[in-house]
Amino acid sequence: MPRIAYFGPSGTFTEMALARFESAGAFEGQVERVAAPSQGAALDLIRAGEVEGAVVPIESSVEGSIAATLDSLALGARLQIVAETELEVTFSILARPGTERADVRLLAAYPVAAGQVREWVARELPDAAYYTSTSNAAAAEDVQAGKADAAVSTVLAGERLGLATLAAGVADHDQAVTRFVLVTAPRTAPPATGADRTSVVLELTNEPGSLMRAFAEFSTRGIDLTRIESRPTRTGMGAYRFYLDCVGHIDDSAVAEALKALHRSAPRIRYLGSWPAFAKPGAPPPPDTDAALWLSQLRKGVADR
Amino acid sequence: MPRIAYFGPSGTFTEMALARFESAGAFEGQVERVAAPSQGAALDLIRAGEVEGAVVPIESSVEGSIAATLDSLALGARLQIVAETELEVTFSILARPGTERADVRLLAAYPVAAGQVREWVARELPDAAYYTSTSNAAAAEDVQAGKADAAVSTVLAGERLGLATLAAGVADHDQAVTRFVLVTAPRTAPPATGADRTSVVLELTNEPGSLMRAFAEFSTRGIDLTRIESRPTRTGMGAYRFYLDCVGHIDDSAVAEALKALHRSAPRIRYLGSWPAFAKPGAPPPPDTDAALWLSQLRKGVADR
Amino acid sequence: MPRIAYFGPSGTFTEMALARFESAGAFEGQVERVAAPSQGAALDLIRAGEVEGAVVPIESSVEGSIAATLDSLALGARLQIVAETELEVTFSILARPGTERADVRLLAAYPVAAGQVREWVARELPDAAYYTSTSNAAAAEDVQAGKADAAVSTVLAGERLGLATLAAGVADHDQAVTRFVLVTAPRTAPPATGADRTSVVLELTNEPGSLMRAFAEFSTRGIDLTRIESRPTRTGMGAYRFYLDCVGHIDDSAVAEALKALHRSAPRIRYLGSWPAFAKPGAPPPPDTDAALWLSQLRKGVADR
Amino acid sequence: MPRIAYFGPSGTFTEMALARFESAGAFEGQVERVAAPSQGAALDLIRAGEVEGAVVPIESSVEGSIAATLDSLALGARLQIVAETELEVTFSILARPGTERADVRLLAAYPVAAGQVREWVARELPDAAYYTSTSNAAAAEDVQAGKADAAVSTVLAGERLGLATLAAGVADHDQAVTRFVLVTAPRTAPPATGADRTSVVLELTNEPGSLMRAFAEFSTRGIDLTRIESRPTRTGMGAYRFYLDCVGHIDDSAVAEALKALHRSAPRIRYLGSWPAFAKPGAPPPPDTDAALWLSQLRKGVADR
Repeated sequence: MPRIAYFGPSGTFTEMALARFESAGAFEGQVERVAAPSQGAALDLIRAGEVEGAVVPIESSVEGSIAATLDSLALGARLQIVAETELEVTFSILARPGTERADVRLLAAYPVAAGQVREWVARELPDAAYYTSTSNAAAAEDVQAGKADAAVSTVLAGERLGLATLAAGVADHDQAVTRFVLVTAPRTAPPATGADRTSVVLELTNEPGSLMRAFAEFSTRGIDLTRIESRPTRTGMGAYRFYLDCVGHIDDSAVAEALKALHRSAPRIRYLGSWPAFAKPGAPPPPDTDAALWLSQLRKGVADR
Repeated sequence: MPRIAYFGPSGTFTEMALARFESAGAFEGQVERVAAPSQGAALDLIRAGEVEGAVVPIESSVEGSIAATLDSLALGARLQIVAETELEVTFSILARPGTERADVRLLAAYPVAAGQVREWVARELPDAAYYTSTSNAAAAEDVQAGKADAAVSTVLAGERLGLATLAAGVADHDQAVTRFVLVTAPRTAPPATGADRTSVVLELTNEPGSLMRAFAEFSTRGIDLTRIESRPTRTGMGAYRFYLDCVGHIDDSAVAEALKALHRSAPRIRYLGSWPAFAKPGAPPPPDTDAALWLSQLRKGVADR
Repeated sequence: MPRIAYFGPSGTFTEMALARFESAGAFEGQVERVAAPSQGAALDLIRAGEVEGAVVPIESSVEGSIAATLDSLALGARLQIVAETELEVTFSILARPGTERADVRLLAAYPVAAGQVREWVARELPDAAYYTSTSNAAAAEDVQAGKADAAVSTVLAGERLGLATLAAGVADHDQAVTRFVLVTAPRTAPPATGADRTSVVLELTNEPGSLMRAFAEFSTRGIDLTRIESRPTRTGMGAYRFYLDCVGHIDDSAVAEALKALHRSAPRIRYLGSWPAFAKPGAPPPPDTDAALWLSQLRKGVADR
Repeated sequence: MPRIAYFGPSGTFTEMALARFESAGAFEGQVERVAAPSQGAALDLIRAGEVEGAVVPIESSVEGSIAATLDSLALGARLQIVAETELEVTFSILARPGTERADVRLLAAYPVAAGQVREWVARELPDAAYYTSTSNAAAAEDVQAGKADAAVSTVLAGERLGLATLAAGVADHDQAVTRFVLVTAPRTAPPATGADRTSVVLELTNEPGSLMRAFAEFSTRGIDLTRIESRPTRTGMGAYRFYLDCVGHIDDSAVAEALKALHRSAPRIRYLGSWPAFAKPGAPPPPDTDAALWLSQLRKGVADR
């Protein structure tokens, strides 16, 4: 029975994403779910050999990339993303039975969630201060434990803990979506499907043009970059690490060539995996078949046009 | 007496940055300091005509860009950055007199600050949960009001409120530095100094290569990009807004040409200003003098080489 | 009465091109035509102040660029192209009256012309050897002087010298066209028409990528290169001079910016002029009006989007 | 005994180049030399299966590329360049015994040679007109046959025909060098040496930027272009074919990738071969070994940095 970590505790959106991966047949047989207190902790369980995989959130359509996940993927031993799913994110406002909206003075929330309901809270719970919970499910636990009056949490957490729902479907922005990834130890990537995503982390020299040259390795090969995220390396103002997602698979020769070119020119590159995209991510890179056949014929000396 | 807003309340690092701008002679005469509850609120006071300027944090060497500041600069009426300063950031852990470290169960912190002391807190205050304050100074006020046991805050806030200092100089990372900017209504930029920074916000079409072409407008003109930040536009997964800083001034012809080229090609570009950099930001763009003289002679028909 | 040199003697296609410029109103009043023995000699008459302009062929759709013209424009004092025209080129085979095709043993031809009738001559005058004449008109004179049996020449030359026409409209390739330019001393370019051509000569450093960077100065500004010609500098194998034509005018700001950028980066650049194209040369560079207005407003501090 | 064609007749510089290839051990055993009347005719003998190879001039440091050779390589069945050599080129002025310089009225010359002695002839034989010979050796034969008074020719031709030498070592430019290539039917290229040249012919779409994109396929892979030659396709003004030489070998992965990329994007590309350069042609493209190893490990799922 594979052990799979997730950013817990039980009741988080991440656990819901793990359930999605299970229904989609990502694992053989029944899975043992292992809750971890943070994204980094979930990934470290793979590095420690205690689980075979981990599910973590990586990007929100509202808040952008999840920094804790990116930083943990960039540092420590290399791990590999092998699958993704996306969930529409709306929150339940949970409280102990008997609590009214007007009673809410302290509202437990995971900061990412707080960022997605701020307008609703300012309007509907104007007297509420925020208590920082470590996840959406932990916010519900914090309410059950009496640390706060209400929680920005999930349907699943409310059901598990028997809390009352003050409001459901809460979200400042329509179509707030979060992407979750399934991460494992390094392995051969799942086969290319024609609608794949490949992700790398780059550190570049501090010369003018180095970033532009790195991007050109993709664009000149007809590869579409779908995400560009810069994060400070924490080694001083102005030093960045870049997280790049492109359309395509490491077995697509255009992508393989771009990776090799970056390996030659960038001080540091880490490959985070190639996997099937949840939704069609854009046009795939141009196929190599004809050109490779032509090249191999030239090398053999076959007469051609 | 100019009225200048800052991200308050009194005692924040931002107020310390405002004091720096005052000592550096950024204003004529005495300034009336106006505390605002958020970065966006401080900037909106300019838009409402209630203040002549505002000081807000824009980037941390540890946490990266300050999203609330960037988003407020990108949206609403255009404002303009006219000056910057940088402060080394270390925190004071403040409590009501008589509180011991072992008593701290609930620790008030502004989330950006929490991110910069997380390791110290895990080690030194292992039982503490976080209470979300709206600024570093507000965290001290929350302690004074009894909402939390201790605060991650500033020396200045401790002095003003008469709180005790449980620890001083707290920071997980050495050399944590935050950059603050002075923002005004649109105006002519301060004169070029040879060590200037220019900032723009870009929205690009979703075509492959559009970002690379935008960057090429800088690199082909010898302009060094010093910051590239992507933030979701909140209109759907994969839609980004880019915040770019480059070395140079709108009066440098290379920068002026790059801005014009982006205005022609990008669906949306907003200029956020040109101002003297706090520290030398990199090599300035190549001067235009010789080339412009040559061109004007060609246009007049002067014989030359 | 302006004196205009042309690549002569009387009866060349170049004289026909000069007549075209006259009918098109390129000159004020009657022109005094001055035949010169070569393209370089015609251009040197301008440099010596003996003529006000010169007409020379610059490019053939069959033979490519006319090296003698390009080299003379690249070296010596700078001259400027101010107008162009194109002529369809077919040849007359001329002989002294009484000569039959079967009698032709020695065929006088200007080498460029020989290249354009080689197939016809091999088929129709299989026994003919070539005598090298210094122009198409000179070939007819050489026949009149008895130096050769027949000439590859022009209708005009046949009429002037009273020679018989063995064949007319001779050309190996359909639609052989030659472009002629009117050259003067440096002056202000004729006003932009929206369908202009600008020409430069470049010498580049021998670094990888220097040529590609030079071309990028055009392409990143949306300027279409219509001719790229490399010629050895005669200073050693592998040293080239590049002749580039682009769509646009020195008063188009995109072209002006590209010229300035090349002046900064190339060891040597010579501007050969901007003039109206004979046929629409391609899409003009993007206009600057909106972008320039936007930039000037930013500089003044006008509030904008 | 291999039959090798050359641009003849006997006595040309090309025959001297063929002798060089023989001494350098390019052939097994004794060679049967087959004179051909033109560069194209020499190459067509390979296509007809009548010879195993051909030696032709391809580029002069004074006159640039030899158009007849390039055009014959670009059209008809594909052939392949397998070796090169370079000869310093100075001419002998040959005449029948008894002829004085003052007697020379008609000077037989191959046009490429005429271009390289024009200044010397204008100064030393001011009364001479040119007779067009089909090669440097043919010029000597034309003098022997009485068709001209003197010939611009080679030492070798003078010896063979017993002509007198009016002047030796004649050349307008110091260090005039001509490159000759040995061409065969398509075959596997000679092994990479680290100082190789690869040559292609390209036809491009008539879009702005298509040439720049083609060049970028080389420059972004660190490949140095050493020759760029444009020749009209003879299908109309402004339609060009490009002859590109780069440093490197088809077995260098950077070169292989560039060829494949051009095959994908260019309407027509013809590979003309990879062969050892006569003199060191520039820095070779970056090696692929490390990057290829890294990629293959990623594909296998080996853990790495």
